[in-house]
Amino acid sequence: MRDITNGELKRASLSQLNGICRELREEILAAVSTCGGHLSSNLGAVELTVALHRVFDFPKDRIVFDVGHQCYTHKLLSGRAAAFRTLRQEGGISGFPKRTESEYDSYDTGHAGTAISAALGLKKAHDLKGEAGHVIALVGDGSFNNGLIYEALNSIKILKANIFIILNDNGMSISETVGSMASVLKEMKEEDGDVFAGAGISDDVHLFERFGLTYRGVVNGHDMGELVAALEDAKAALEKGSVLLHVHTRKGCGYAFAERAPTETHGIGVQTGLEYSQALGEELISLAEEDGRVVAVTAAMTDSLGLRTFFEKFPERAFDVGICEEHAAVLSAALAAGGLRPYYAIYSTFLQRAYDEVIHDICGQNLPVVMCVDRAGITGRDGETHQGVFDLSYLSLIPNLTIAIPKDISEFRSMLRMSLRMTGSLVIRYPREGTEGETPEIPIEIGKFEVLHSTMSYIVLLAAGERCLNLAQNVLKRAQAEGMDFTIVNARFLKPLDEKLLSSLSQKTVITLEDNVLTGGLGDAVARFYANSGKRIFSFGYRDAFIPHGAVSDLMAEYGLSEEAVLSCVREQYARR
Amino acid sequence: MRDITNGELKRASLSQLNGICRELREEILAAVSTCGGHLSSNLGAVELTVALHRVFDFPKDRIVFDVGHQCYTHKLLSGRAAAFRTLRQEGGISGFPKRTESEYDSYDTGHAGTAISAALGLKKAHDLKGEAGHVIALVGDGSFNNGLIYEALNSIKILKANIFIILNDNGMSISETVGSMASVLKEMKEEDGDVFAGAGISDDVHLFERFGLTYRGVVNGHDMGELVAALEDAKAALEKGSVLLHVHTRKGCGYAFAERAPTETHGIGVQTGLEYSQALGEELISLAEEDGRVVAVTAAMTDSLGLRTFFEKFPERAFDVGICEEHAAVLSAALAAGGLRPYYAIYSTFLQRAYDEVIHDICGQNLPVVMCVDRAGITGRDGETHQGVFDLSYLSLIPNLTIAIPKDISEFRSMLRMSLRMTGSLVIRYPREGTEGETPEIPIEIGKFEVLHSTMSYIVLLAAGERCLNLAQNVLKRAQAEGMDFTIVNARFLKPLDEKLLSSLSQKTVITLEDNVLTGGLGDAVARFYANSGKRIFSFGYRDAFIPHGAVSDLMAEYGLSEEAVLSCVREQYARR
Repeated sequence: MRDITNGELKRASLSQLNGICRELREEILAAVSTCGGHLSSNLGAVELTVALHRVFDFPKDRIVFDVGHQCYTHKLLSGRAAAFRTLRQEGGISGFPKRTESEYDSYDTGHAGTAISAALGLKKAHDLKGEAGHVIALVGDGSFNNGLIYEALNSIKILKANIFIILNDNGMSISETVGSMASVLKEMKEEDGDVFAGAGISDDVHLFERFGLTYRGVVNGHDMGELVAALEDAKAALEKGSVLLHVHTRKGCGYAFAERAPTETHGIGVQTGLEYSQALGEELISLAEEDGRVVAVTAAMTDSLGLRTFFEKFPERAFDVGICEEHAAVLSAALAAGGLRPYYAIYSTFLQRAYDEVIHDICGQNLPVVMCVDRAGITGRDGETHQGVFDLSYLSLIPNLTIAIPKDISEFRSMLRMSLRMTGSLVIRYPREGTEGETPEIPIEIGKFEVLHSTMSYIVLLAAGERCLNLAQNVLKRAQAEGMDFTIVNARFLKPLDEKLLSSLSQKTVITLEDNVLTGGLGDAVARFYANSGKRIFSFGYRDAFIPHGAVSDLMAEYGLSEEAVLSCVREQYARR
Repeated sequence: MRDITNGELKRASLSQLNGICRELREEILAAVSTCGGHLSSNLGAVELTVALHRVFDFPKDRIVFDVGHQCYTHKLLSGRAAAFRTLRQEGGISGFPKRTESEYDSYDTGHAGTAISAALGLKKAHDLKGEAGHVIALVGDGSFNNGLIYEALNSIKILKANIFIILNDNGMSISETVGSMASVLKEMKEEDGDVFAGAGISDDVHLFERFGLTYRGVVNGHDMGELVAALEDAKAALEKGSVLLHVHTRKGCGYAFAERAPTETHGIGVQTGLEYSQALGEELISLAEEDGRVVAVTAAMTDSLGLRTFFEKFPERAFDVGICEEHAAVLSAALAAGGLRPYYAIYSTFLQRAYDEVIHDICGQNLPVVMCVDRAGITGRDGETHQGVFDLSYLSLIPNLTIAIPKDISEFRSMLRMSLRMTGSLVIRYPREGTEGETPEIPIEIGKFEVLHSTMSYIVLLAAGERCLNLAQNVLKRAQAEGMDFTIVNARFLKPLDEKLLSSLSQKTVITLEDNVLTGGLGDAVARFYANSGKRIFSFGYRDAFIPHGAVSDLMAEYGLSEEAVLSCVREQYARR
C-alpha cells in the first residue's frame, strides 16, 4: 500500500483516520492471505496503533510490542508499507519487531511478557542520558498472566522511570485468557458498563495504583475519537508518573470471519501435512483412558499442541495455566511428586522459559514428567525467536533426563506409550509436521538406535528425527546413483546414546545429522563418545547463528543441513577409503 | 539434640512448646556454628514450624519450603535430630528439603518462588487420587517478588485445589525486600498496628481475595498461642477454599547478633580466601567513574555479589529489582538497547532462571550486556540446587555470546576493563574464591588463550579457570617428579575458541579441564574443533549427575576433576608416544 506520512496522520480528521484504518486492514488481510502471519491479533490493534502514531512521535518516542503479534500497523506506518508484501519471506519484512529492520522498532520481541521490563530499561536509559521521549509498552491481557509482567510492575517504583503501559485487552491469548488476573480485567470491563462511554473505575484500580501506576480506562479500542483523547490525556499524565491505559479491543476486529474465530485466525499459515500434535492428542487420550494418573499441562497453547479434545474429555485432568511456562513446569513436577503422570506439552522455543524449572524441579528430583516438545528444529517464517534449534543442546546436559527424537508420527506414538513405563524425566522432541510411517513391530527400548538401511559401506549416517532421516534418504538415493552406499541409523535417543551400537562402529566413518545447532547436540555427544579413540566425525546441524524468518527447507539448507553438503562429505570419505 | 516426638508436641502446653523452641534454637545455632548454613532465616521460623507440627499431621499433610532457607526446625522435628550435626557435610543432612532424605520432605527446593506451584500440584494429585491431607506452602516475602509466585497465585482458581499459603514476612530477602509488593505487605503489617494483637484487615486483602485466597493475618510469628490459634483456624477454613496466612516474623529471632545483622547472618560459611566479588565491586566503581554509561543490575544479591559500595556510590545507576532474575535480564537488555552499558551480576545457578531472556533479549539482539556469573563451578555445601556446573554448557550454544573464564582475580579485572570495548554480549564466569595473581602486562584480546607453561612435550593441557589451572599446576609438579612434562594453556575463552592456537596443536595430545559438566562444555568444544581430524582428546570435568552437598575439593575429585585421574591420563599418553 501507499506510505502514509506522519504529517498526514497528524493532520487527518477522525473520519480520515478511520479511512486510513480501513486501508490498513485491507493491506494486512491481503498480505497475510498470501504470506501467512498473525491476523486476528493485528486486526484488533489497528485503531489503537493509528491513534498512537497520531499522538506520539516515533521514533523519538519508543514503543515495545509485547510478543509482537500486533505490530503490523506500526510497520505499515513507519516506512515499510511498500515492502509489506514481503512479510515473513526470506530477506523480507519480519513478522515481529526488529531493531535491525527499522529505527522505529525499539526492541525485539517474540516471547511473551517482556515489554514492561523493556520499556523500563529504555526509559531509564533515556533518563540517565538526559534524552527526552516517551516509552510505551503495548501488552495484551494474555501476557498479563506471565510472571515477568508482575516482576516488572513490582519494580516500577524502584526504577523511578515514567512509562506508559497500554493494556490491549481482548480477553484472548491465542485462546481465551485464563486465570484470576483475566477475571479481574474482565470485571473491570463489565463494571465499566458500556465501554464505549469512557472511563469507568473499579475497586481493582487499587491493584494497579499499588504498583505506582495511574490507571485510566476502560477505553473502546475501536473508537478513534475516544482513543486519541485517552492517549493525549495519558501523555500529559506521564509527566507525573507511570500510566496504565486499559483498552478494550476485539480480536479480529473488522473482518467478520476473524471476529467469529479469533483462535483459528490468530496465526495464519499454510498447513501442508500431518501434524505431530494431532497424534499427541490422540495418544494422550488413549493413555488417559487406560491410566488414571495421566494428566496434561499446557501454557496457553491447548489448541496448537493438539490437546483441545483431551481438555474436553478430561476437564479435571487437563490444566492450562495461561502463558506461564515456568509455573506449568513446577506444577508438572509436583503433580508427578504427588504420584500422577503429567504430560507437559510446549513449543521448543518456549521451553527455554522454564529451563531452570526443568533442571531444578523436574530432573533434579528425577520426576516422571514427560515433556512433549513441539515445533522443534527450524520452524520457518516466525524467525529468530521461534526457531526450536537449541533444545537438544540445552537439554542434553541435564542429568536424569532421557531425550527421544521420533523418526515419524508412528514412532512418536510408540514413544508416548513407552513413556508410561519410564521412572524418570523424559523429553520427546518433534517438528510440527511429519508423516505417519509404519507402526513399529516391537516396543521402543530406551537408548536403542534403529538401523534403517544396512550396508557393508565404511560410512554410517546417524540421523536424529524425521527431517534428518529424510535428508539422509535423499542423499542416499543420489549417492547410490553415483555407485556409493552408506548405512543409515535412526539415532532416536540423544540421551542415553546407544553406546553398544556406537562401539560397533569403531572402524567406520561416522556422519551425524540433527535439526539443531551443532554446539552441544548429537554431533558433540557422538564426538565425545569417540574422543579418546581418534575417530573422525563429521557433524551436520546449524551453525552458530540466530536463524531469521524464511521457508523451512531453504533455511535448513542455508544454515547447515543441505543434501549437497552431506553428499560432498560422503563423496570425500568414500574417496579416502 | 534429642528427638521430639509428634506426640510430645501435640500434648505440650504453650510454655512447653516455647521451651522446645529454645532447645531448637540452641541446636540450630550449634549446628550452624560448626557446619555453616542458613542462620537468621531459620531462627525466624522456629515458632511457626513448631506450631505447624503441633496443628498439622506430617507427613500425611505436606509442606513445601520455598527456597528452603527455613527448613531446619522441620528437619529437627521429623526424625533427623540425631543426625543434625552432619548438616551440609558430605553424606550428611542437606541444608535444603530433600525427598530422598525423608518422607517428611515433600518437595525439593533451593531456588525461589516454586512453593505455591508445587503445593498446587501436590494438592491436585492428592485430590485426583482421592487422598486426604493438607498441603502447605511456606513462602518468604522476598519470594513474593518472584514472577513464579504470581503465576501460581493466578492459577489457584483454575486448578481448584485448596492449599494453605503461609507468608513468612520478615521484610527481608537476603537483604531488605524491595518492590511494590514488599511495600504492600509492609503497610498491611503497619495498618495492623500492634501485630501482637492479632488479625488486622487492610484494603489490600482484596488483592489476595482476587486470587481465590481467604486472607488471615497479620499474626505475630513468635507468639505460640497466637500462631497455634491462627493455624487451627486456617486449617478449618481450608475445607472451604485456599487460605493465605500472613505471619510477621523477625529474621534471626532469638539470637541478638543475628537480629541486628540479619543479612550478614543469612548464610554462615567459612570464608577462606579472597573473593572475586570484591574485585567486581571495585572494578565496576572504577569503570562507572570513567564511563557514565556503566550501570549495575542485580536480583536481590547486592551484598553477596560485592556490589554494596557500588550501590551506595551510584544509587541512580544501580538497580536491585528483587528476586526477579528474568526481569533483571530483560531490564539489562533494554538498558543496553537504550545506549547504556549494564553489568548484570548473578550466581551461575540462578542465571538458569533467566535463560530464555539471555537468549531472546540479550544475545538475540546482540546487546552489550556484561553478565558477571559468580559462584560458577562446584559451590559445595548448598548441594544440588546451588552447584554452578551447567553454565558453560547452556551458554556455549548461544549465538553472539562471548564467554570468558579468568585464571585469577587480576585477569578478571582485566576482562572487566576489556568488557567496555565489547560491542556484543559477554559472560565472565568465576568461582567465589580465588587469588589475586599478577596484573597482566597486555590487555586481554578476545578469543586468545595464554600459554602458561611451554614445553616440547607432546601433551598439552587446556584448563579453564583458576581451579582447573591450579589442578593442572599440581599435576605438573607430580608429573615433573616422574620425569614427565607437559604444556599448560590458560583456556580463558570458551567462546570464541583460540582456533589459531588449537590449530598449532595438531600434532599434540590435548587434555581439557573445566569446572563444569563435561556435556557441552570446553572439552566438547575442543573435540568439535578437532572432530574431522581424528585427533584424540581427553576431557576432564563433571560426569552427568546432580552433585550433592560436600566440600568443594572433595566433590571436584569425586565427580571428575582429580589430580590422580589427570595424572594417570598424562602417564598413559606419555607412554604411548
